[in-house]
Amino acid sequence: MNTVTPIVKTITWEEGTESMAQIIECVPNFSEGRRQDVIEAIVEPFRRRRGCALLDYRADADHNRLVVSLAGAPDPIQEALLEAAKVAVEHIDLNQHQGGHPRMGAVDVIPFVPLRNITMEACVELAHRFGKRYHEETGVPVYFYEEAALRPERRRLEVVRKGQYEGLKEAVTQPERHPDVGEPRLHPTAGATAVGARKILVAFNVNLGTTDVRVAKEIAKAVRSSSGGLCHVKGIGLSLEDRGLVQVSMNVVDYEKNALYRVTELIRMEAKRWGVPVVETEVYGMVPAAALLESAAYYLQIAGFSPDQVIELKMLEMLGSDGS
Amino acid sequence: MNTVTPIVKTITWEEGTESMAQIIECVPNFSEGRRQDVIEAIVEPFRRRRGCALLDYRADADHNRLVVSLAGAPDPIQEALLEAAKVAVEHIDLNQHQGGHPRMGAVDVIPFVPLRNITMEACVELAHRFGKRYHEETGVPVYFYEEAALRPERRRLEVVRKGQYEGLKEAVTQPERHPDVGEPRLHPTAGATAVGARKILVAFNVNLGTTDVRVAKEIAKAVRSSSGGLCHVKGIGLSLEDRGLVQVSMNVVDYEKNALYRVTELIRMEAKRWGVPVVETEVYGMVPAAALLESAAYYLQIAGFSPDQVIELKMLEMLGSDGS
Repeated sequence: MNTVTPIVKTITWEEGTESMAQIIECVPNFSEGRRQDVIEAIVEPFRRRRGCALLDYRADADHNRLVVSLAGAPDPIQEALLEAAKVAVEHIDLNQHQGGHPRMGAVDVIPFVPLRNITMEACVELAHRFGKRYHEETGVPVYFYEEAALRPERRRLEVVRKGQYEGLKEAVTQPERHPDVGEPRLHPTAGATAVGARKILVAFNVNLGTTDVRVAKEIAKAVRSSSGGLCHVKGIGLSLEDRGLVQVSMNVVDYEKNALYRVTELIRMEAKRWGVPVVETEVYGMVPAAALLESAAYYLQIAGFSPDQVIELKMLEMLGSDGS
Repeated sequence: MNTVTPIVKTITWEEGTESMAQIIECVPNFSEGRRQDVIEAIVEPFRRRRGCALLDYRADADHNRLVVSLAGAPDPIQEALLEAAKVAVEHIDLNQHQGGHPRMGAVDVIPFVPLRNITMEACVELAHRFGKRYHEETGVPVYFYEEAALRPERRRLEVVRKGQYEGLKEAVTQPERHPDVGEPRLHPTAGATAVGARKILVAFNVNLGTTDVRVAKEIAKAVRSSSGGLCHVKGIGLSLEDRGLVQVSMNVVDYEKNALYRVTELIRMEAKRWGVPVVETEVYGMVPAAALLESAAYYLQIAGFSPDQVIELKMLEMLGSDGS
């Protein structure tokens, strides 16, 4: 018999009077996708802060943009965000910034997303509180968007960011473009920041076995809300030239209402019209467990299934509780 | 704007030199399914112990048996198990016990199951260490079974438990029935305990739209290993008379090798032969996330999918780490 490896780690349960820990996701976007030292310096506070889990970060040189995925408790996430934002404001000059992705600030967007035991309303409040504090500590003006919008048209990020940094520098003086927090002028190098609250978003792509991009464009039209498809799906048709495929590239903005199996089956159905096979799909970036479990339950015909039956989810649910 | 509810809870990351927490599942079975006060007294230590999550417990009066599902770190689970076992040994007298389920001890079986960042070998060592300590503290003799078996034939629990409490009381004096830990005699009231290590087991049932139980029996034969089906599936055909259905009731003992989608599709295929529909399936009790994610990935044709993309799993993976 071998001797057993000493087991030194334990999971801890935080003391508290509430039974469940509040967990949010946060996906801040920074306008830096090329300078590795700056990227690492921005990400560093998310690594160090307890209660803030750095799930993923992806820098894209073409977009010149850094997308960070965080999850954890609201307070530590906010503290880490402020630290990271200060690094970005210090090191990124929008006057020198070029890239393929629309942007208006060094810290471009900060969406708060309810994940567990927290409501959308609480995330909206969080966005408002955080936006004010962020402005106080950095001087960068803030626009609230999506669920946190204070003006109806600002629910749409593309309206907030219209003209990007260069255009907004002029337009900000117009009353309808005034920021929600701060004076009507941009930060001289860090521009402005959109702070919001939204539901979790699943980036879901379906790759089709044809080189004819019209097929992907037609199927995107059939499935997306803007042309009358599923109400919570955004999508475009793209060519994947290197692979000899085309892609329906989608954001499923409410996976509870438009389940992934329904999106997939709708695309399979439409693809038949063109005699084109679905070659594969892709889930890009992070996805909540429920989005995939719902599809497993559909295809396996599981009756009466509860996420509490999933060992890992039940464990996570109990974390932060006193175990009772 | 409403004032925000104070956010008092945070998730904590345990300090440590290793980056990942070891997590096991443990499913102890106790021979008490009727006396509510005894059931609650047995379960109580699992509620109180930090690092040991009480996922689920089910008492069955017909079986006169209590099945507890735990997950967490090995050390707190062992400590809580010892406390609970002492309650069971004190309050359950096998000489007075009757029930539908085979049993040989007040604490009947204790399987340790590797869940995350721990090997089967480490769980076998854990079973051996725990078995010795349990015997020292309770006087109950121990048999090691499944992966923890010290004699090949004892891998099978039914061999260990042959004759149940009443039969083993006599047979224990025969050398081939001697316990692995303790003298060759049973505890006068608490019998003997089987301590083991095994892979996670998924209890999966498929309900078919017929009242002809032969269909379920034939399909069970086609799918289970004992009659030449899938190597890691056990199964029987049953009648669900109240519902006018029949059931293929299965244990998938290695869901990584025999994925649920493959089991389901095989049964759908066989059911066609009888012109019988699959009405629904059931996942009974706890299931690891991977068992369902694998099926979601199959049916949705997700390419290059990683469990690290699932927010909750990534968070759990980071718990117990120092966040780096």
